[in-house]
Amino acid sequence: MSAEAMKQLLAERAALVETALRTCLHDADIPAPLLQAMEYSLHAGGKRLRPVLCLTAASLFGLDAAVVMPFACGIECIHTYSLIHDDLPAMDNDDLRRGKPTNHKVFGEAMAILAGDGLLTEAFRRMAGVQGVAPGRVLQAVAAMAAAAGAAGMVGGQALDMGYEKRTDITLPMLRDMHARKTGALIQASCLCGALLAGADEADQARLAGYGAALGVAFQIADDILDEVGDTAVMGKAAGSDRERGKTTYVSLVGLEKSRELACQAADEAAAQLHSWQGRDAAFLTALCRYVVDRAC
Amino acid sequence: MSAEAMKQLLAERAALVETALRTCLHDADIPAPLLQAMEYSLHAGGKRLRPVLCLTAASLFGLDAAVVMPFACGIECIHTYSLIHDDLPAMDNDDLRRGKPTNHKVFGEAMAILAGDGLLTEAFRRMAGVQGVAPGRVLQAVAAMAAAAGAAGMVGGQALDMGYEKRTDITLPMLRDMHARKTGALIQASCLCGALLAGADEADQARLAGYGAALGVAFQIADDILDEVGDTAVMGKAAGSDRERGKTTYVSLVGLEKSRELACQAADEAAAQLHSWQGRDAAFLTALCRYVVDRAC
Repeated sequence: MSAEAMKQLLAERAALVETALRTCLHDADIPAPLLQAMEYSLHAGGKRLRPVLCLTAASLFGLDAAVVMPFACGIECIHTYSLIHDDLPAMDNDDLRRGKPTNHKVFGEAMAILAGDGLLTEAFRRMAGVQGVAPGRVLQAVAAMAAAAGAAGMVGGQALDMGYEKRTDITLPMLRDMHARKTGALIQASCLCGALLAGADEADQARLAGYGAALGVAFQIADDILDEVGDTAVMGKAAGSDRERGKTTYVSLVGLEKSRELACQAADEAAAQLHSWQGRDAAFLTALCRYVVDRAC
Repeated sequence: MSAEAMKQLLAERAALVETALRTCLHDADIPAPLLQAMEYSLHAGGKRLRPVLCLTAASLFGLDAAVVMPFACGIECIHTYSLIHDDLPAMDNDDLRRGKPTNHKVFGEAMAILAGDGLLTEAFRRMAGVQGVAPGRVLQAVAAMAAAAGAAGMVGGQALDMGYEKRTDITLPMLRDMHARKTGALIQASCLCGALLAGADEADQARLAGYGAALGVAFQIADDILDEVGDTAVMGKAAGSDRERGKTTYVSLVGLEKSRELACQAADEAAAQLHSWQGRDAAFLTALCRYVVDRAC
């Protein structure tokens, strides 16, 4: 699949997610000011990559998008909450996210904390509410998502990242582990849970998880490269911001050329997990990991 | 059951919970500084009322404490996260909790936010991991807990509470609704989920939920009374603190005498839900709601 066709399909599936997200918080009696803060960030755009990965992994095993959609929306709620909390003054203290004022800049710090808490908790309500899949499978997927998003996964990665700022003794294995938690775990679990919900056997679950893990690595290295060389308009944040913050990145550790090599290697690893599948979903996932890296090379 | 016997049984069951909480975060690879911050608050004491309610409701329908314990630990993780986030400078800005420095005072604001996020997410991993109960029942309980803790429940109640501070136009129905979300929902869901996991039918689930809701009301009114008349050593916070903050309470709205009347009424309502059960668990739950009110009367 060409990059253009992949982007087209990504946009189509993201549009399905977008539609579902529009109303996904409207079945609960959420106080208006809190709902407003939650929806401000949930509807602030983004590629909807994680839910699309989940839908695509499920589709690869023949499960319809409509069945997986509540779970996919839950994943995007988790991703959105993590951005709101990461942006807080006590954390990264960012004023802008995707070119718009961050949640706490608009609604204040207290409401931003609660909006994040609310999105995280609603995510689990949504995910646990999946219908049309054996309950045991849904439970496994909920547990996998909690493990990926939790203290040993995404939250743990953010804690490590904050501890690593300004330190000069961060090694490549430490950086890899931090990113595997902070960004990799949720991408990996999005792929795994799609397969899990669709009834894939354990070997196929492991392949999709392997794809997601490698994609996460490719994604992160590409992000580090773009931060160094990219242009501000494309990224929605200032180029060189990692360096200014004294953050250790792939580029600062091994240089640009080697970083590109590692990114390509990760993309190859991701693609290799999919070789036994034909058809549009596998072609999409393969084209996606190439694209992630090509942007940065 | 006498108040003394009830307190004895509460202490016994709380000790079981305490033991399970000791190791409940040790099966995941959580970065050390984050784990330390999470455990600081998780092991800071407290009556463990919510998990004991869950265990007792399950026991009422014959389900063993060992089966429910991971779920009960998850409930306490949710309660603990809510305390950490409520204490943050942007929220209630409290320096002390149960006579000890609050989480952010010890570990800093960023780590306290992450410790809360981590506990909330780990709670769902724990709850989804319950074994020995039909997966469909576990899923229902997870969804019920997410609804109770989420944006329409506890998080929504905290958002309302913050919006109500310094306002002088808060009515009794508004106060009731806010407390039903902020503290009632989790107490109610703790009782409901014990019954749900134990396979109680819908009518019995409703009775336990009704018990929990009324207990929550009794608990809250008693808390408002104790804040007005109580002694600082018993409560672990300064008496009259609500008044100082300009908070609307049951006492400020309807006075001490009427508040006591409403508290007794709520305790009666709670007890009335249990009249069809005999035995130690029902006696314990009945004695508990009397005790909550007696402390304040």
